[in-house]
Amino acid sequence: MKKNLLIIGAGGVAQVAAYKAAMHNDVLGDIHIASRTVSKCEALVAGILEKKALKRPGILAAHQLDAMDVEATKALIRQTKSQIVLNAGSAFLNMSVLSACIDMGVAYIDTAIHEDPKKICETPPWYGNYEWKRREDCERKGVTAILGAGFDPGVVNAYAALAANAYFDRIDSIDIIDVNAGSHGRYFATNFDPEINFREFTGTVWSWQQSQWTANKMFEVKRTDDLPVVGEHTTYLTGHDEIHSLSANLGVPDIRFWMGFGEHYINVFTVLNKLGLLSEQPVTTAEGLEVVPLKVVKAVLPDPMSLAPDYSGKTFIGDLIKGERDGIETELLVYNISDHEDAFAETNSQAISYTAGVPAIAAAMLIAKGEWDCHRMANIEELPPVPFLDLLGRIGLPTRIRDEKGDRAFDPAEFGETRQTRPKVRQA
Amino acid sequence: MKKNLLIIGAGGVAQVAAYKAAMHNDVLGDIHIASRTVSKCEALVAGILEKKALKRPGILAAHQLDAMDVEATKALIRQTKSQIVLNAGSAFLNMSVLSACIDMGVAYIDTAIHEDPKKICETPPWYGNYEWKRREDCERKGVTAILGAGFDPGVVNAYAALAANAYFDRIDSIDIIDVNAGSHGRYFATNFDPEINFREFTGTVWSWQQSQWTANKMFEVKRTDDLPVVGEHTTYLTGHDEIHSLSANLGVPDIRFWMGFGEHYINVFTVLNKLGLLSEQPVTTAEGLEVVPLKVVKAVLPDPMSLAPDYSGKTFIGDLIKGERDGIETELLVYNISDHEDAFAETNSQAISYTAGVPAIAAAMLIAKGEWDCHRMANIEELPPVPFLDLLGRIGLPTRIRDEKGDRAFDPAEFGETRQTRPKVRQA
Repeated sequence: MKKNLLIIGAGGVAQVAAYKAAMHNDVLGDIHIASRTVSKCEALVAGILEKKALKRPGILAAHQLDAMDVEATKALIRQTKSQIVLNAGSAFLNMSVLSACIDMGVAYIDTAIHEDPKKICETPPWYGNYEWKRREDCERKGVTAILGAGFDPGVVNAYAALAANAYFDRIDSIDIIDVNAGSHGRYFATNFDPEINFREFTGTVWSWQQSQWTANKMFEVKRTDDLPVVGEHTTYLTGHDEIHSLSANLGVPDIRFWMGFGEHYINVFTVLNKLGLLSEQPVTTAEGLEVVPLKVVKAVLPDPMSLAPDYSGKTFIGDLIKGERDGIETELLVYNISDHEDAFAETNSQAISYTAGVPAIAAAMLIAKGEWDCHRMANIEELPPVPFLDLLGRIGLPTRIRDEKGDRAFDPAEFGETRQTRPKVRQA
Repeated sequence: MKKNLLIIGAGGVAQVAAYKAAMHNDVLGDIHIASRTVSKCEALVAGILEKKALKRPGILAAHQLDAMDVEATKALIRQTKSQIVLNAGSAFLNMSVLSACIDMGVAYIDTAIHEDPKKICETPPWYGNYEWKRREDCERKGVTAILGAGFDPGVVNAYAALAANAYFDRIDSIDIIDVNAGSHGRYFATNFDPEINFREFTGTVWSWQQSQWTANKMFEVKRTDDLPVVGEHTTYLTGHDEIHSLSANLGVPDIRFWMGFGEHYINVFTVLNKLGLLSEQPVTTAEGLEVVPLKVVKAVLPDPMSLAPDYSGKTFIGDLIKGERDGIETELLVYNISDHEDAFAETNSQAISYTAGVPAIAAAMLIAKGEWDCHRMANIEELPPVPFLDLLGRIGLPTRIRDEKGDRAFDPAEFGETRQTRPKVRQA
């Protein structure tokens, strides 16, 4: 049993995490929110209190923190007596926050792979360049570090674990499909930090095909699926965090990530990218000012958090998994549908932030309750999926299953035998 | 007779002007080139000497000058004994350079209306906001100041004067059409300073219709013409400098400017403009850096001067003029075709710079020879067009005429009676 959660960050994902943590402070204990700009944390605290979102009276406090400063982070962990730390801020902070957690012997959670601000779409194995280098330190000190506990990476890894463990005898392919069928009504906007958003698409697209890393360009490969609820959508082969761990942890030959883009998004992205405006490398203006183009693009785009009030429509994120079960070629779709307006009503955020923030709090709750307090570094697919999906269904992110038996709500009882610490790892 | 030319600027237009001035230094005397970055002027001088472009041995010198500094400009005029000054640099400099010329009693030439860096597409009458305020000062001091002596504004004004003076009895409409049918082979580039280029299109499009100013949005109104040599092109109603003087100086009810754009240009422009990246108003990045988006766009785009070596194809610029002649409704097209590769072979520049730079030198030569040394401020349509078009034909920009008699080279003899100081001004 661990208590008291320190959330780092004050953007869209951190906001959802803070609301959800408050709604479950009976499990999590004190809730602390820290970021560089303390006023953002204070506004978040004020919003939560105004919405009377705290489940029971308890501490909900804002703090100023530069989380690149490991000693400052350790001091705040000590001061707040936090036993669980969630980095819901920038992926640039992961390694610093992880270091602080290992030093302090407290649990660590993040929602994306660490990024070096100077590099984009690094070569596989990406985790191997960063977090996994601290794996032995976690093991030795018995520190729980749960990596990539958002939706994708995160819940989609649990979907894959569920399939590998309790559904298929052999998996041939996992295609993770992420479609935002919602509308924000602006000419153009990104749904989370534009700097992080565009960085996903400006480099090489890495996928795991025929048991090896395969390089493509963005928008080079696409597919069209008729998906539940959101209908027909075209998605594009995209590099994504979860492929880097799933390819190492499950013996599945084809693991791909597909993201939905409208033609308008692709056009705007292509123009900006071709012109060099998405570059993270500084340019010098005629007046001698050195400036990173991507940071200027970020400055002119709408603040992703400002989109939430006008957002309508739904998101689809799921795993389309093919393989063999009982000697028959079988296809399984495990997915979630979220609604932008519902997310806003509950957490003042749109569904993109909601789907990333809620799983991180589910992970924190499972650590607090001991079920996921594994005393080592783990990606989501290495942890028992059923309690996670069961909890998610109860706190806002229900899972659905579609196979030859039809489309139905995920029933934990159907997968009861998977309540074990690790899924089986199998070779195709 | 005036001697010695000081060219301010070291961009594409200044480069063409410097080459052409060197090729006619028997008329112009000493040639001085000055800009903020003296190394650019030195490179220009070196290129001209290497090409042995000087018609006869003479002074060709580079100077450092911040032309916003009126006293520094006056000192350089004094030092170089220049009697003619051409601002072939930024339109932001016009009023400072004009002030220096008036103070020193030397002739002034520019190629575009003065612009305030903080404003875009100002309200008519644009000249009335700037240059024309110094009209009386020029008159009183007998200073020759020739405004807008490029191609458009410039040669197209002379075309209009030719038509008004020696062709039509009544003019109903002047449609100035500018098409670059060349190709630079890059994903996207502007043919002159992007900052000036985009500023033409980001505000209100002002045209002169039914004898009043009419406001439209960019890309709102278009036409398609089958043009000589370059073929069928779609052009868009665009605000442009020459409309501001032609509407005041000729009593013509409809004066419009049409610029050709490909769909790709329009798409890139629209994306950048809609996102706010063409704004001249500073934004602040997340890191607190204040930066003007348009200056960053300029920094990532190709240097317009770098396009010249790979440029191929032709430009069309002309006036389509409708009115009455000898009691018959008549249509006259006066135009020039220039070739990017020819321009490069002669001046190391593409045809966009060539068509703007050559007329400015023709104007300087006519001042030097006394024909245009009018001792007052004048727009091109107020000066005798035939000697100008005659000279242009001999130094690289031949004029062609198309009417019911067919398509033919402009013959000065056909318009001999217009060798007078001012064209007639007539009411429609």
